[in-house]
Amino acid sequence: MTWVAEAAGSAYGVHNLPYGVFRSAGRSPRIGVRVGDFVLDLDGAEAAGLVLAGDALRQPTLNAFLALGRAQWTTVRTRIVELLTAEEHRAAVQPLLVPLDQVELVLPFEVGDYVDFYSSEHHASNVGQIFRPGGQSLLPNWRHLPVGYHGRAGTVVASGTPVVRPMGQRNTPDGPVYGPSTRLDIEAEVGFVVGVPSPLGGRVGVDDFAAHVFGVVLLNDWSARDIQAWEYQPLGPFLGKSFCTSISPWVVPLEALADAWVPAPAQEPAVLDYLRDVPHLGLDLRLTVDWNGTRVSEPPFAGMYWTPAQQLAHLTVNGAALRTGDLYASGTVSGPRRDQVGSFLELTWGGAEKVLLADGSTRTFLADGDTVTIGATAPGPDGTTVGLGEVVGTIAPARPD
Amino acid sequence: MTWVAEAAGSAYGVHNLPYGVFRSAGRSPRIGVRVGDFVLDLDGAEAAGLVLAGDALRQPTLNAFLALGRAQWTTVRTRIVELLTAEEHRAAVQPLLVPLDQVELVLPFEVGDYVDFYSSEHHASNVGQIFRPGGQSLLPNWRHLPVGYHGRAGTVVASGTPVVRPMGQRNTPDGPVYGPSTRLDIEAEVGFVVGVPSPLGGRVGVDDFAAHVFGVVLLNDWSARDIQAWEYQPLGPFLGKSFCTSISPWVVPLEALADAWVPAPAQEPAVLDYLRDVPHLGLDLRLTVDWNGTRVSEPPFAGMYWTPAQQLAHLTVNGAALRTGDLYASGTVSGPRRDQVGSFLELTWGGAEKVLLADGSTRTFLADGDTVTIGATAPGPDGTTVGLGEVVGTIAPARPD
Repeated sequence: MTWVAEAAGSAYGVHNLPYGVFRSAGRSPRIGVRVGDFVLDLDGAEAAGLVLAGDALRQPTLNAFLALGRAQWTTVRTRIVELLTAEEHRAAVQPLLVPLDQVELVLPFEVGDYVDFYSSEHHASNVGQIFRPGGQSLLPNWRHLPVGYHGRAGTVVASGTPVVRPMGQRNTPDGPVYGPSTRLDIEAEVGFVVGVPSPLGGRVGVDDFAAHVFGVVLLNDWSARDIQAWEYQPLGPFLGKSFCTSISPWVVPLEALADAWVPAPAQEPAVLDYLRDVPHLGLDLRLTVDWNGTRVSEPPFAGMYWTPAQQLAHLTVNGAALRTGDLYASGTVSGPRRDQVGSFLELTWGGAEKVLLADGSTRTFLADGDTVTIGATAPGPDGTTVGLGEVVGTIAPARPD
Repeated sequence: MTWVAEAAGSAYGVHNLPYGVFRSAGRSPRIGVRVGDFVLDLDGAEAAGLVLAGDALRQPTLNAFLALGRAQWTTVRTRIVELLTAEEHRAAVQPLLVPLDQVELVLPFEVGDYVDFYSSEHHASNVGQIFRPGGQSLLPNWRHLPVGYHGRAGTVVASGTPVVRPMGQRNTPDGPVYGPSTRLDIEAEVGFVVGVPSPLGGRVGVDDFAAHVFGVVLLNDWSARDIQAWEYQPLGPFLGKSFCTSISPWVVPLEALADAWVPAPAQEPAVLDYLRDVPHLGLDLRLTVDWNGTRVSEPPFAGMYWTPAQQLAHLTVNGAALRTGDLYASGTVSGPRRDQVGSFLELTWGGAEKVLLADGSTRTFLADGDTVTIGATAPGPDGTTVGLGEVVGTIAPARPD
């Protein structure tokens, strides 16, 4: 039990301990770990010799710490638990606890490459039916490999960053026009943060997932459906996605999710050997999507067809190098039911069915001023809950000029 | 006239002065500028106070220098020309000239995001005919916007880096199989290097190209056509490209290409306002492609349908931020004739027609051990020629394990 009384029973107790980067009291960004509704200042803790990580905790981003690898991640975590549970450390550590409401949380790591997968069967087949009515809902490759593509790493931002409605080109019956996107959407996703790099020409197999991946964030891959629909053939999504991708401020380490692994859906037909993960496990993360405060969906991550280990093995099978800070996302998390989908495209079935919000207003796609909050929890040890924080964004009006 | 006698008449005279990063005599990487067959050590020059750029030339990559912006780029260039032409500087500068054959040239800048366009009408329609026989050779969006997508920044490498044949998944009549790519190809391209960043939510218009772009590299976007053909729907190329993208070691500044601008092909239908560049200019870069020493193609960059300024305006129209080190490439440069194409897919028309090399052997796609060299020149001032260096790669065998 932690001596941080307020953390007892919290989804952010010492069984969780997610890492982030915060600013407070006008100081420059520092690494911290969340415990209850406090941030433990790890920069201060390392400066005081309370935890030792070769100054990796005294940096403005998590990258140096992410690069240390699993043995040192575990050592640091074990020490932090010790600091927060042994009464003898209380006097030294208590002054390093900063109330969460006194900090600003910033982007926790510098993103290397950003890859987005498309691994929910329900999402892929919904999108197929909406965009290609009468056609195949799943394309022939979908069950053979985790379809994915590269997004724009430079526009991955911290939760809370305003999402400026993108300008762009869309097609109309009278030809292409330029203007603010009229079909602005979300994609509720889970992101995996790479710590340990791999060399060019090498490969990271399904069994090496935990040696390279440090932890998990929530991710909103904001999407302009009108821009995307016009631009995406034949090279895939580009400007319909690259204006903004938001991530949650807390990177939840894999150690905190040890009790959240569950059997992933059976795969039929059988996958090629390099994608065969035994055991074949997904993460039981339970997402929530709130639209201006109205809970509109609860996407279940456990039902994803492709697992995080398979995604990583596929991503590197061609010899692509990994860098510390690489981020790969699951793709939109959608379950089988309409109240489990991770995009408004699906929730409104292509904009055809309105959603009623608690204030009595209705929506198809996002209006200026709308706020979307994606949260998640996972089962922790001994009946506890692990919180994954939230990724929040509010739509700012387009800037036409 | 430069006092570096060997540089007179060279495509790397003081009218060119491309920047790179080199290693020599066991020392760590330093910034240099090429003059004739020498590298002028700019790290040494700044250390000696011969050129001043706030220590931006004393870094292991060009990024800090790229971030300085056009006014300082011009100041530094003017000063380097002075150092290399005024006899009074000879005694101080000559010791800083390192023969090119004594240096190793490394990746000149840390790549931010890497975007690849698809801006040659001949290439796009050739690929359309090869991949979609009987269908439209150009898709409906192609003349309305410069189609592009994000590639993997972390696998952009320096010229000379071995290109390991990728393993991966391809489809066969008997279903998907895993193995070394059997259709390994090149894409001869021109890359544009962003110096000055732009804020998220802002836009860089067609007229602001020269305020943000520092210069030009040659680029080979190595492509595994079998992997690409199976994976690319609906989200675009992924592993078929992400194993390796090579760039030339010398970044040729826009100043050196001032005489290379020529009218770009007329665009019909007219483009939307945000893409209208007046004057509508392309660069008269004359590329060469050598396959094991046999010249197989001379792609003309001047014929590209979309201009570099239009590509940049499109890339940022949705508010996407630019970072120093962002790299965007033209897409495969192909002219109208078969001996002007920038890929072997086109040269062999999908692998149907063999190419005869000078040693009497024939090829469709790349064999292990093959070397491809892409070079280019441009017209310089007063009848001179500007050399863009070369991007070279040799195919190493796949690593099956």
